[in-house]
Amino acid sequence: MAKDKKLVEEITSMNDDFGQWYTDVIKKAELVDYSSVRGCMVIKPYGYAIWENIQKSLDTRFKETGHENVYMPMFIPESLLLKEKEHVEGFAPEVAWVTHGGDEKLTERLCVRPTSETLFCEHYSNSIQSYRDLPKLYNQWCSVVRWEKTTRPFLRTLEFLWQEGHTAHATAEEAQEETIRMLNVYADVLENVLAIPVIKGRKTEKEKFAGAHATYTVESLMHDGKALQSGTSHNFGDGFAKAFDIQYTDKNNQLQYVHQTSWGVTTRLIGAIIMVHGDDSGLVLPPAIAPTQLVIIPVSQHKEGVLEKANELKQKLSAKFRVKMDDSDKMPGWKFSEYEMKGVPLRIEIGPKDIEKNQAVLVRRDNREKIFVSLDNLEETVVNTLADVQKSLLEKARELRDKKTYIAATLEEFDQIINSTPGFVKGMWCGERECEDLVKEKTGATARCMPLEQEQLSDKCMCCGKPAKSMVYWGKAY
Amino acid sequence: MAKDKKLVEEITSMNDDFGQWYTDVIKKAELVDYSSVRGCMVIKPYGYAIWENIQKSLDTRFKETGHENVYMPMFIPESLLLKEKEHVEGFAPEVAWVTHGGDEKLTERLCVRPTSETLFCEHYSNSIQSYRDLPKLYNQWCSVVRWEKTTRPFLRTLEFLWQEGHTAHATAEEAQEETIRMLNVYADVLENVLAIPVIKGRKTEKEKFAGAHATYTVESLMHDGKALQSGTSHNFGDGFAKAFDIQYTDKNNQLQYVHQTSWGVTTRLIGAIIMVHGDDSGLVLPPAIAPTQLVIIPVSQHKEGVLEKANELKQKLSAKFRVKMDDSDKMPGWKFSEYEMKGVPLRIEIGPKDIEKNQAVLVRRDNREKIFVSLDNLEETVVNTLADVQKSLLEKARELRDKKTYIAATLEEFDQIINSTPGFVKGMWCGERECEDLVKEKTGATARCMPLEQEQLSDKCMCCGKPAKSMVYWGKAY
Repeated sequence: MAKDKKLVEEITSMNDDFGQWYTDVIKKAELVDYSSVRGCMVIKPYGYAIWENIQKSLDTRFKETGHENVYMPMFIPESLLLKEKEHVEGFAPEVAWVTHGGDEKLTERLCVRPTSETLFCEHYSNSIQSYRDLPKLYNQWCSVVRWEKTTRPFLRTLEFLWQEGHTAHATAEEAQEETIRMLNVYADVLENVLAIPVIKGRKTEKEKFAGAHATYTVESLMHDGKALQSGTSHNFGDGFAKAFDIQYTDKNNQLQYVHQTSWGVTTRLIGAIIMVHGDDSGLVLPPAIAPTQLVIIPVSQHKEGVLEKANELKQKLSAKFRVKMDDSDKMPGWKFSEYEMKGVPLRIEIGPKDIEKNQAVLVRRDNREKIFVSLDNLEETVVNTLADVQKSLLEKARELRDKKTYIAATLEEFDQIINSTPGFVKGMWCGERECEDLVKEKTGATARCMPLEQEQLSDKCMCCGKPAKSMVYWGKAY
Repeated sequence: MAKDKKLVEEITSMNDDFGQWYTDVIKKAELVDYSSVRGCMVIKPYGYAIWENIQKSLDTRFKETGHENVYMPMFIPESLLLKEKEHVEGFAPEVAWVTHGGDEKLTERLCVRPTSETLFCEHYSNSIQSYRDLPKLYNQWCSVVRWEKTTRPFLRTLEFLWQEGHTAHATAEEAQEETIRMLNVYADVLENVLAIPVIKGRKTEKEKFAGAHATYTVESLMHDGKALQSGTSHNFGDGFAKAFDIQYTDKNNQLQYVHQTSWGVTTRLIGAIIMVHGDDSGLVLPPAIAPTQLVIIPVSQHKEGVLEKANELKQKLSAKFRVKMDDSDKMPGWKFSEYEMKGVPLRIEIGPKDIEKNQAVLVRRDNREKIFVSLDNLEETVVNTLADVQKSLLEKARELRDKKTYIAATLEEFDQIINSTPGFVKGMWCGERECEDLVKEKTGATARCMPLEQEQLSDKCMCCGKPAKSMVYWGKAY
């Protein structure tokens, strides 16, 4: 192992410096590169292939739930951005402004979309007349820009890729149903595709989206005990509809405002995959989104019959899996480390002795288990092993998340826990902004969400001791 | 027919006003909408679904030919854009400039990418060291911005969606091979997926891409006799490599410059589909990219058993085709017109009498042929009919294109032809810029390309009478 390691450039250990470990992994697993554009990423083929697989999982589910993809302009005229008061206050300080087209100064500035509520609202205002036009269930895949001061690849960048769903409904009930439906789609993809366990909950007033009536979130916990907001689903009520005059004639010929939602996830999910599953050897990818699900490595490949056999296996397995066979002239040990770094879920080693015994050696990336398997059962074993890897990753992540989830009854206790053992801390809250601000000020932690599954830990707010209204997951967040 | 027509809003006839016909079709077939952002499109679900199908056709072929998708920043710092002289002269006058991030004035302006050569070059300069790193075969799907004065949906817009391939190779030969390979991929997709016949050729020096050594193009002819540049593939030689210092160490340990290509197609292809196949009843879509390949319309749907049968057919056919069943309370005649407007390739009518006879009525969108078919053979007939529609569309378009392709021996003859019978005009050319400029000045036509398949129409340039170097397809273009 030590010998292998030296062949690949080493990465910082997670426990020594989690931030540096993250930076090493994204660079050495060839996920991203930097460029001369401050705060923006070059997403390299391996990183982008992960994103494409995430996109497919989401897009299929969006379409199954009746949504259609559209594309809106990337620019928003300043006057349009200004239409909804809370929304503009939330976003105006962090948008990029286009002031010139060629040599000509524009009469009105355009911002590069930080999110597209205003454009969808304008479109809905023009295209919705009657109850027959509802619901509108639109989604768009694009990039957006937010002028962040400090950035980190995938987690917080000036420009990032995402999808933004924007829907319009006849009633408040339908909008609320949609908000929760899409929250559940996100939870499904995170848990069953990315193998990342989530807490589903509602954001506090302080943490909700600018202009939303209510924001719901899926929160996950990274290996270092910091929380990551992994996807949000907003119920806008009729706030935007009133600002943008989106009305329809109902069945009784009465004018009504629509009720709207929006929901989005971003390339940040790749950051979550890295920080939930990764280890000191690099990336660990869930099979469902791994660009390469298994890599075949011929051992003593110059010996007669080895490459032929390796190619034969590749041919056979490619029908069902995303397979790579590495017959480059590097040493097997180097290759083992390389594909561990890249998080390939399963490695198949095949050498002359294996061929003699009609077997291959499978090695799991997640727990390094070695499995000797007859070539007659190879395909079946791969199917089962990949399924087990997928399942194990989720279980392992859930165990760690649960282990790092604490309970605090008082602010003192809270402060002690969050700063000695980072993680989620569950604590009761009176619902007042003052207490929420106090937690932030004293400890640096924020209310991640009020989980949909509430627990009555005590009757009292952990800050002020007054009657508690909700149980909150608190944490320090990316 | 007349009665049906009245039920749907009518569109302008192609022959009366082709431009207005185009505008009517894109609006009434619900492909795009306008917004308050000048020159940008809202691509609606039906238009975007066509784009998604085009994307799939292309992306599959890109991957089959070894290309990988990546994502580069949407911004280009001014200093980076300025690095290649011809390139910046070509693009600087038409870029959108970001000058402020939030409230802060930027120290260096960023342009919104009009194309990403400069970013790919910077990345290649950082990531290519050795011949082992070559070739780099990258592609990106994104939107780009060019500050056009006059715009028209799909054909010329401030922002448009496209893919841009950018590759780096060890030798000039490999770069040239790649340039032609991708030109052929475009020709394949246009002809065999979009059913649009193309002329493959090379652009003149005047018409080539800013910074390219040579530009190749696939040119198609619209129904009104105007040409549309439908896709381009550029060989950059080592020009960008020298400007951006992209060098690699070859097998003999010598430093060499890479040779590069780039190639792209855009949402403009949707404009081509409309203008090549459309008719006075609206859109006509090739089955390969039609979001709905066949629509089932129940006739007398209130009668017992009709909706059940229609649903049963939908169920059955959905396994193989993209099917829609319209059981809304509108009249069948209205529905017929509606799906003709939307260009759905095949309609299936099923009513009580059909059910009695165990048959359905198929109606082709392209030639309105009615086919009575036994329900026992329905699936097979649909397969064959859709294949025939796809083939017929290409043949019909090729016939029209050939009919509208003329030959001119002199500039006078050329002028007369191009202005009385718009189309492609083949004419010999001496290769001098003066003659090319003269054609433009006198007739408004431009050199569309020097086709790869040359014909020796005469020995003399049609302009100056001096010895001819190439046969050129000339035309007025979108």
